[in-house]
Amino acid sequence: MIDLRPVINLIARIGFVLGLMMALPAVIDYQARDPNWVRMVQSMLIVTVLSALIATASRSRAGSLTIEQSFLLTSGLWLVLPLIGALPLMLGAPKLSFTDAYFESMSGLTTTGTTAIPKLDDLPPGANMWRAILQWSGGLGIVVVAMVFLPVMKVGGMQFFRSEGFDTLGKVLPRAGQIAAEMTWLYLGITIACAVMFIASGMSFYDALLHALTTCSTGGFSNYDASFGGFIGPAEWVASLFMVLASIPFVRMIQATRGDFVPLWRDTQVRTYLRWIFYSVAVIVAYRMLYIHQTMHPWDTVRETTFNVITIFSGTGFASTNVLEWGHLPFVVLFCVGLIGGCTGSTGCSVKIFRYQVLFEAIRAQIRRMQSPHRLYSLRLSGKRLEHDVVYSVMAFFTMFVLTFGLLIVGLALTGLHPKTALTGAWTAIANIGPVWGPEVSYNGSIASFPTAAKWLMTLGMYLGRLELMSVFVLLLPRFWRG
Amino acid sequence: MIDLRPVINLIARIGFVLGLMMALPAVIDYQARDPNWVRMVQSMLIVTVLSALIATASRSRAGSLTIEQSFLLTSGLWLVLPLIGALPLMLGAPKLSFTDAYFESMSGLTTTGTTAIPKLDDLPPGANMWRAILQWSGGLGIVVVAMVFLPVMKVGGMQFFRSEGFDTLGKVLPRAGQIAAEMTWLYLGITIACAVMFIASGMSFYDALLHALTTCSTGGFSNYDASFGGFIGPAEWVASLFMVLASIPFVRMIQATRGDFVPLWRDTQVRTYLRWIFYSVAVIVAYRMLYIHQTMHPWDTVRETTFNVITIFSGTGFASTNVLEWGHLPFVVLFCVGLIGGCTGSTGCSVKIFRYQVLFEAIRAQIRRMQSPHRLYSLRLSGKRLEHDVVYSVMAFFTMFVLTFGLLIVGLALTGLHPKTALTGAWTAIANIGPVWGPEVSYNGSIASFPTAAKWLMTLGMYLGRLELMSVFVLLLPRFWRG
Ligand SMILES: [K+]
Ligand SMILES: [K+]
Repeated sequence: MIDLRPVINLIARIGFVLGLMMALPAVIDYQARDPNWVRMVQSMLIVTVLSALIATASRSRAGSLTIEQSFLLTSGLWLVLPLIGALPLMLGAPKLSFTDAYFESMSGLTTTGTTAIPKLDDLPPGANMWRAILQWSGGLGIVVVAMVFLPVMKVGGMQFFRSEGFDTLGKVLPRAGQIAAEMTWLYLGITIACAVMFIASGMSFYDALLHALTTCSTGGFSNYDASFGGFIGPAEWVASLFMVLASIPFVRMIQATRGDFVPLWRDTQVRTYLRWIFYSVAVIVAYRMLYIHQTMHPWDTVRETTFNVITIFSGTGFASTNVLEWGHLPFVVLFCVGLIGGCTGSTGCSVKIFRYQVLFEAIRAQIRRMQSPHRLYSLRLSGKRLEHDVVYSVMAFFTMFVLTFGLLIVGLALTGLHPKTALTGAWTAIANIGPVWGPEVSYNGSIASFPTAAKWLMTLGMYLGRLELMSVFVLLLPRFWRG
Repeated sequence: MIDLRPVINLIARIGFVLGLMMALPAVIDYQARDPNWVRMVQSMLIVTVLSALIATASRSRAGSLTIEQSFLLTSGLWLVLPLIGALPLMLGAPKLSFTDAYFESMSGLTTTGTTAIPKLDDLPPGANMWRAILQWSGGLGIVVVAMVFLPVMKVGGMQFFRSEGFDTLGKVLPRAGQIAAEMTWLYLGITIACAVMFIASGMSFYDALLHALTTCSTGGFSNYDASFGGFIGPAEWVASLFMVLASIPFVRMIQATRGDFVPLWRDTQVRTYLRWIFYSVAVIVAYRMLYIHQTMHPWDTVRETTFNVITIFSGTGFASTNVLEWGHLPFVVLFCVGLIGGCTGSTGCSVKIFRYQVLFEAIRAQIRRMQSPHRLYSLRLSGKRLEHDVVYSVMAFFTMFVLTFGLLIVGLALTGLHPKTALTGAWTAIANIGPVWGPEVSYNGSIASFPTAAKWLMTLGMYLGRLELMSVFVLLLPRFWRG
């Protein structure tokens, strides 16, 4: 049997911290003289008291986690924290149902950014800030998980990054604290820089803070029904910059802050990512210039295209315009880049550049092997040997991703959604992107009117996608629970 | 350097036989007093004379093919034969352009079944019969390739079937002749049985023969713009039966004709295929009964659904009704089963049941390995050990299939097609299914009005899909040509 106490204890402690964060929206609502602040304080008290009690009750002396406990911790966190995040949205404005509140909270903590709220403009400022805080916390959480846990758990080929210096199995826990601290400082720094530049580009302090939280987590929540539509201009460039920063490996940025820019500069994953962003933007700009009547200045087309491509590629999911008006081809390109996603070890989601690099190497090797079956090929990526284990694991991940995506589309269609909605809903959920398109989607992109079953399926999809599928599926093995 | 002579010689010989087959449509048109018979005879003369000359010029004493020559033979056949198939459609009715004629011929020889002809009802009977002959020949060709060449070439895990008794590398050629002969007899037998039962169900002799040729090759061409819409009733059951037979392993049927029914009965691939067909039909029938107002008798709903599910699942692509009227869910299910396809070693196309079975085993093993990294797992399928090589090769195939499918969608969108057309066009091409849906598709399902670039992209997609991608991609290696 697995000793659940250390897992429960850690989840309770992290829940306690998330509960404390409700102080900020409470203060904001209080200052705005919005009675919602009372509900925020109530939620904070409930969460902090409950989680303090559970943390005390589950204290243990375990200094490290077994592999089974690591799996339970990550899978458990993203099941329990959404409950905490949902509470203020049920007790206070917008008084969501449990389904909607859990969806919204999961969408926040997985940095997906699809909303279940029919109207955002009218929400108390604290409630909107709480949504942004959920995304920011989720983004931080996922970076730590991606750097500390996934490599040890060998999820989807992440063991390739073990030597990036993070761990050996027994030492996960102490190192985790240290890494989490370093990451938090970097993440905080980026967020503050982003907020300052948003203010400089003309946003109010509140809007700048809120959007900095959801930009640097590649989350994509906004406090406006028009999403980024009210900030057309320099703010789009600022957001583009920080969305890219948030979706490249955090390790590289930490090295850079220490003065060592070489690893960042030489990182093939980062280079490939930037190159592919450039190509996508170039193709869409060219298409728009040639085929779609443009009333705007070419430079504005470039800005608008860059922002909206990066927002999908990085999995952030803001919108500053209706991209459907760009024509068919841009839509197909955006759909595809959403299934690529950013780099590993960042807040970015989806399959990620690294895995495509491995897949291409694997396919090339496989084709070579067909011709000369007796030769041995060693696969390399950025000068490092790709162990067979990594390649196999990446291919299994990709297969699982495609099949889960397919099942999710079928499942959503089973609830009665239009095929277009089912397709983009599954896409946005499993790759944690944000936007959905289809006849059932309301004017502000909300999925409030979806059938309940569809909401739960999307919640499941976001959960599986964010935890890279395998770290959840492993819990389904009966043998797992025998320890 | 690779010795191209034996390859050219074989292609010329097979081309000669295909040319001779033009005699049948010539006779049909002559009897129907349609002047098109002259064009058929002209085409036959051109093809047979030219290919006889080439075959004579390229005679060599090579008794077996190297692996490189095997790859060139399969890839070359499906490039050259479509030229031969296109000739009568350019010289005679319907006087297609080279693009359309090559598309139509490729669609025939790859057993895809999408048509580039705007109106089929008016075509001379010989021209329509020629289209059916192309599919029948293509189906026979692909069965031989799947049984003789793919296992040796280790394409997409097909080496799993090597022990089914077909080959060792040096012996490919003599065995190939023998296997081809056995297969041809079986295939002929099935086709005649199908034609007889079509006649019994009320079709004219001509219609029965033509549809038997395109049913038993899972091809899907019809001589009517309404496709199978004119044969509602018992003929749908007959077609359903023979489409299933055409998409299960031919080896099993040969064993059965020799009195040994056990291998067919015990084949897990066949069992899984039949089970999945049953589930798909059950889900769609239930959905239609519950959610879509049905004016027809429940039994008719079952018949119509069974026929249209099997036609997509097996990759045949007939239509006896507008399946879009069944509602959203059935469409999504049909789309998915098209990406599964029939069994290996048949005329069926797409990814195929066997590969999904391997993928599921691989994923299960991978998840287990995450939890207990030091244990060794041996994968098994139908009691036989799945070599690592096979698993890896299947995963590489699936990855390649998904990525090529994605690129094809983007490519088709680039030509200006609506996303729905791009999606279903890529789907129908790479999985060799037949139907396309979208605003650019004409009333009879023809892609005549597609942009030229889209037609060529779909031609490429059909070619790659039919040859299981890898056997073409291997030619792109510079090392391949160095021998
Ligand atoms: K997002
Ligand atoms: K077909």
